[in-house]
Amino acid sequence: MKKIKAGLIGCGTVGHGVLKMLKRNRSYLTRKIGCPVEIKFVCDSSASVRKQAKALGYSVTGNVQRVLNDSDIQIVIELIGGSTVAYQVILGALKNSKHVVTANKAVLAEHWNEIFSLAHEKKCLVYMEASVGAGIPIIQALNEGFAGNRINEIVGILNGTTNFILTKMYQTGMNFQKALKLAQECGFAESNPVMDIDGFDSQQKLAILASIVFGTAVRPELIHCEGINGIDISDLIYGNEFGYVMKLLAIMRQSKDGVELRVHPSFISRFHPLATVEDEYNGIYVIGDAVGETMFYGKGAGQMPAASAVVSDLVYVAQKIHYGIGGRLPYVMLDSHKKIKLKNIADLVTQYYLRFMTVDQTGVLAQISNVLGRHNVSIASVVQKESYNPKRVPIVMVTHDAREKDIMAACKEIDALKIVQAPTRLIRIT
Amino acid sequence: MKKIKAGLIGCGTVGHGVLKMLKRNRSYLTRKIGCPVEIKFVCDSSASVRKQAKALGYSVTGNVQRVLNDSDIQIVIELIGGSTVAYQVILGALKNSKHVVTANKAVLAEHWNEIFSLAHEKKCLVYMEASVGAGIPIIQALNEGFAGNRINEIVGILNGTTNFILTKMYQTGMNFQKALKLAQECGFAESNPVMDIDGFDSQQKLAILASIVFGTAVRPELIHCEGINGIDISDLIYGNEFGYVMKLLAIMRQSKDGVELRVHPSFISRFHPLATVEDEYNGIYVIGDAVGETMFYGKGAGQMPAASAVVSDLVYVAQKIHYGIGGRLPYVMLDSHKKIKLKNIADLVTQYYLRFMTVDQTGVLAQISNVLGRHNVSIASVVQKESYNPKRVPIVMVTHDAREKDIMAACKEIDALKIVQAPTRLIRIT
Repeated sequence: MKKIKAGLIGCGTVGHGVLKMLKRNRSYLTRKIGCPVEIKFVCDSSASVRKQAKALGYSVTGNVQRVLNDSDIQIVIELIGGSTVAYQVILGALKNSKHVVTANKAVLAEHWNEIFSLAHEKKCLVYMEASVGAGIPIIQALNEGFAGNRINEIVGILNGTTNFILTKMYQTGMNFQKALKLAQECGFAESNPVMDIDGFDSQQKLAILASIVFGTAVRPELIHCEGINGIDISDLIYGNEFGYVMKLLAIMRQSKDGVELRVHPSFISRFHPLATVEDEYNGIYVIGDAVGETMFYGKGAGQMPAASAVVSDLVYVAQKIHYGIGGRLPYVMLDSHKKIKLKNIADLVTQYYLRFMTVDQTGVLAQISNVLGRHNVSIASVVQKESYNPKRVPIVMVTHDAREKDIMAACKEIDALKIVQAPTRLIRIT
Repeated sequence: MKKIKAGLIGCGTVGHGVLKMLKRNRSYLTRKIGCPVEIKFVCDSSASVRKQAKALGYSVTGNVQRVLNDSDIQIVIELIGGSTVAYQVILGALKNSKHVVTANKAVLAEHWNEIFSLAHEKKCLVYMEASVGAGIPIIQALNEGFAGNRINEIVGILNGTTNFILTKMYQTGMNFQKALKLAQECGFAESNPVMDIDGFDSQQKLAILASIVFGTAVRPELIHCEGINGIDISDLIYGNEFGYVMKLLAIMRQSKDGVELRVHPSFISRFHPLATVEDEYNGIYVIGDAVGETMFYGKGAGQMPAASAVVSDLVYVAQKIHYGIGGRLPYVMLDSHKKIKLKNIADLVTQYYLRFMTVDQTGVLAQISNVLGRHNVSIASVVQKESYNPKRVPIVMVTHDAREKDIMAACKEIDALKIVQAPTRLIRIT
């Protein structure tokens, strides 16, 4: 019986998960694909990983070229991570007319055009379900399940680490540093958490989703990005009083004056479908013009959730190879000349949460309202909090829809007032 | 250029939505499929519908056989609904080696084995994304996105009508009859709402999801089914005090002593991902052994959400036809001899919410607790409510995990006590 052969490059946690799933479901997957899939080589730079894989019965190698040049191998599963070696592996595989399954957000976000141009040229497939939301089939949904929909909006909690931190702060009242430490202890944050905390991980993932939606590469650096570093627990508490929960959101929104692309901490109503996405979970809220509002929820990371997506991709690619149509039709659309009109963050119109720290004296609220009014910012609700320290009284406000540049100008002016004791905290409301 | 021709049978609301989407996205869909898809005939029994379709430029017919016998037509889109004519149409299409796209839950739930046996025999595809959750790509996810997962649990809010009714009761305190009337006025419930209200619609949809998961027909009548008729607003209010919201849930759960399959009103924690699925929305919570907990959310009915799923199915089927592999691999697995071991509802073990209506006298709680204790039912929490009527005082309880047959025996005994004034209300907690 014909067999389809694959090479697995980078056999860390997720790689081992993939081997486990393939072994356990061999007969099911064979029926689903139409023929068996065999891992011809497990390739890893670590001798101990190779030893482990060998003990499981796999042929192993430390030499990437051995996999890329093996004419039997039709699918390369790239699970190295990062965007240097992984990029060479993916390009090398495509150059040799091999299909690719990858879980690597960084390399896709960085090199979308190069990878998919080459894939189209070589009539090869690149599947990448695990790169966003791990096992949540969001790429499948955007790329195929919603075929024929215009995707008007994506609002995603795409990073489990920051969601875990914000959830713990909200639930227990611990501060950011403690919650980060807890996330590290639980294995949800790396020792150097900057990619997660500063929003870059979400930025890369949003770049991938947007690239699929628009059928052209959306560079991650085009996406306005703010992280959750420095988020103050008091804002989570005040936000809660207004009925909001805080999430690090990755947002794509199409409007007639351009496309919004942004990653930043944001308040959402506690009745929003994303509000119950807690701890290390991810949620992706999508509005299509036909399908309407939808939401996808699940674990955004972890060995088996990521392996689940890789195996599902492997099934799709192997099915197509089995029937001789691998790559006859590209998986994602790519028009590298297409331009999307981006909306500048300064032109964003939304509601804002503002916290001013002022002295406790008559006329403070009037002075602040005055400045806001002059900048066309109108107040929807305001709460002035009692404070033990008369020199630092918080005034918390939610505005009506306002323009970002107006808000920024108003806050700058307010921060210069004598009555104001600390820089104003601003959280966008989605 | 080659064209793929389809016939649309039954051109009501959803059919018109499909025509609209196909027209609007013609060039996108052509690129996605690899060649254009053309609706050769719109077939409907109503002369006025035919007139409308003709005005849009379509060839029309009132004769189903004309579509089924047209050798140009490779795909039949069945949007008639019901399980009599629709069944003949689907079988007729398959007999003539045509692929089928259908939105019809009733015919699939009733005739799964016959339809998919014939489809496999004829090497034809039957796609059905719109039959459950309309545009939510749940069938795609279960059947392909989670390939290689063992699906341990599905908990679905699969019926928009009942979810709308329960949401309105909860939000406004209106009773069941008023909420039903509101649902009818808003177009979310039919004038004869029995299929929705009594849970049969959810039962059919769960039968479809279970048939996919188990790779064999799961007959809808095997699924224990209770509707929301007679749900009392007071139970929603008391449930809320314990932190629960009520949903009509369709549940599949695998355990070592068999498969649970049941549809009934149920309390879930307000922190459960399904808790924010409100109004006419659907939500499907799925646990796979690799992917873990996931949830899918969206509109479960309506013209464009259903059309979105039909068009997506059409793309999948047409792609396969274009590449000459339509039906070479079956879409769903089918082993018609496979038996699944069902768990009897009497053996269910879960937590229960109980409301007793008793007289206000000393020792009432002791008597009730006594009976529960003898039946191995242990109480997790209890609230006794003040009442204006000393002859009817509600005692509300949440049990620890208990066996359904023990609960039922205990309630029967309790209902026979002199102190008890009305039959005990019981809601399972999920």
